[in-house]
Amino acid sequence: MLNFTVGPVQAGQEVLEIGAQQVPYFRTPEFSRVMLENEALVLKFAQAPQGARAVFLTGSGTAAMEAAVMNVFTGADKVLLVNGGGFGQRFHELLGIHEIPFEEIKLAHGKALTAQDLAPYENQGFTAFLVNIHETSTGVHYDGNLIADFCRRNGLLLVVDAISSFLADNCPMEDWGVDVMITGSQKALACPPGISVLMLSQAAQKRIEASRVKSMYFNLKDALKNGERGQTPFTPAVGTLLQIHARLKALEASGGREAETVRVAELARDFRSRLKNLPLDICSESLSNAVTPLATRHCSAYDIFTALKDEYGIWVCPNGGDTKDRIFRVGHIGALTVKDNETLVHALEELAHRGLLK
Amino acid sequence: MLNFTVGPVQAGQEVLEIGAQQVPYFRTPEFSRVMLENEALVLKFAQAPQGARAVFLTGSGTAAMEAAVMNVFTGADKVLLVNGGGFGQRFHELLGIHEIPFEEIKLAHGKALTAQDLAPYENQGFTAFLVNIHETSTGVHYDGNLIADFCRRNGLLLVVDAISSFLADNCPMEDWGVDVMITGSQKALACPPGISVLMLSQAAQKRIEASRVKSMYFNLKDALKNGERGQTPFTPAVGTLLQIHARLKALEASGGREAETVRVAELARDFRSRLKNLPLDICSESLSNAVTPLATRHCSAYDIFTALKDEYGIWVCPNGGDTKDRIFRVGHIGALTVKDNETLVHALEELAHRGLLK
Repeated sequence: MLNFTVGPVQAGQEVLEIGAQQVPYFRTPEFSRVMLENEALVLKFAQAPQGARAVFLTGSGTAAMEAAVMNVFTGADKVLLVNGGGFGQRFHELLGIHEIPFEEIKLAHGKALTAQDLAPYENQGFTAFLVNIHETSTGVHYDGNLIADFCRRNGLLLVVDAISSFLADNCPMEDWGVDVMITGSQKALACPPGISVLMLSQAAQKRIEASRVKSMYFNLKDALKNGERGQTPFTPAVGTLLQIHARLKALEASGGREAETVRVAELARDFRSRLKNLPLDICSESLSNAVTPLATRHCSAYDIFTALKDEYGIWVCPNGGDTKDRIFRVGHIGALTVKDNETLVHALEELAHRGLLK
Repeated sequence: MLNFTVGPVQAGQEVLEIGAQQVPYFRTPEFSRVMLENEALVLKFAQAPQGARAVFLTGSGTAAMEAAVMNVFTGADKVLLVNGGGFGQRFHELLGIHEIPFEEIKLAHGKALTAQDLAPYENQGFTAFLVNIHETSTGVHYDGNLIADFCRRNGLLLVVDAISSFLADNCPMEDWGVDVMITGSQKALACPPGISVLMLSQAAQKRIEASRVKSMYFNLKDALKNGERGQTPFTPAVGTLLQIHARLKALEASGGREAETVRVAELARDFRSRLKNLPLDICSESLSNAVTPLATRHCSAYDIFTALKDEYGIWVCPNGGDTKDRIFRVGHIGALTVKDNETLVHALEELAHRGLLK
């Protein structure tokens, strides 16, 4: 199968080789060294500020989203949330569950965030800003500089879900003044799912230190303390952490974050340039390099997903909910090539010729 | 390396082969079928009662322990906890964090649970019983029949952490009247760590249905609902779930739970029979098949762990905390053989000859 979803994505050879091996015991100086290197490299690729730390949590991206909300915010906060799709809505629900006061900027499907959207919220007593920088469910990538300026002007703590954007788009943690940045193993890190990562500025660490979080598993203070010696409070997904290590080292050896972002951007550009003769419309005002959301015109998008899977051995990413029959998404992260783009576009053209894609 | 720890343990060939492959996209009917088979097989091997369900949570065993405490208990409960080591203490802390009223039976290191220990707690208004059936930190396996009888007499909901005991010891969920049984992927399931499993009786499901748990990630009601169609609320550790599937199918094909428990029991018996001439003392009154806890007499147990690792390529399981220098543990779960036992015992004998083990 050829995998154009937004995760799990295709892994490189160095990651698969580790998957084929026995998982080692981990309460050892050897594994601690791996974890300390993981932390240093992931912070380097996040362009994190001095004194930043990273926590590797065994869980999906939502685990890290919930851990961030629980450890970094309190009932004394007033959070401004951008809610432009399924993952913005997830933060909406998390803030509700944990009783964090918030207001939200609700954006219609596919819409970018503009200065006009932000204007009414200037000097309104907010303490923090929460955003999925790439709303993966719709394929809209928000303007990080616009958000960074707003946060600086208003003195806000900035929490960014960059789960599908990290390494695919430029997300400079220090330049943007990001305090918490989240990613996951199965996106551009191109490893199996199971690990989520929280990168934390000193201000975020200070909040975590003061937090009285009502959870053992999501206690980030405990995770940070264990992390000082390259360990975790509980048995982590050791195999996936070793795969992340191999991937980070391979990235480092081949030009680092910059080269990877350029590579993904070029794959996305190439794919989008091939769509001219297809009855498909890009339905995002502001694209991430990670994914191209495509609306069908006169057929079910979910049927195209199924036909590609069953007849062509290709996975694209189906949408859920309201847009299931209207939109599917094509990912550009993981071990994909221009040749893979050609294969997918060829299959789409054939579906169009057959009258199925219309 | 030869791995005698209690997890991650050595995987079989069928599990490693899947680790070497790309992780597939999972919001598909194909993956749903895998998950439904996983649920059916794990419940079969747990000897679960009619109407039981299983939830596969992406997280370590502690994630499942916390999810159980959060979803199954409320402030109206009065829980009786057996606390005989590090994992009993973990439940102690979890009950505290989530403000569940409880009392505990505190057992000294290595001590079994007796009828005398339970006697003072008869008819004392308890509503639930919580136990690590095998306290992995000390290698003490509690008497399930004794506990089951006590719970039946007192009408208690029974929650059993069987993380390291499942498949290694006989843990008959229906016979014992267990309402929640927990295990993890990296123990006798012999897969990489990253997935924990909760098996739930109908009574437990009823409690979960009524629960107003303040968590999204640990909302078991949501997990059960998604599980009906073989899916999970969030991206799970898809690769590990496929490995669990391969392992469960392989177990099913080679005699099921019974054959595996006999195999592990025989490995444990064989290892223990080889210890006569070594200056090591088994320090548990009631052994699980999963592990043999061994106390050194005149040397540091942690030094033995290090020497075995660095000089013999063998991992045993070091203890933490107070007993770090006094005790190490030898696991019998995962892909181990009698020949592996010989290799370990030979290494221990050599360490004794060299005057290091004494």
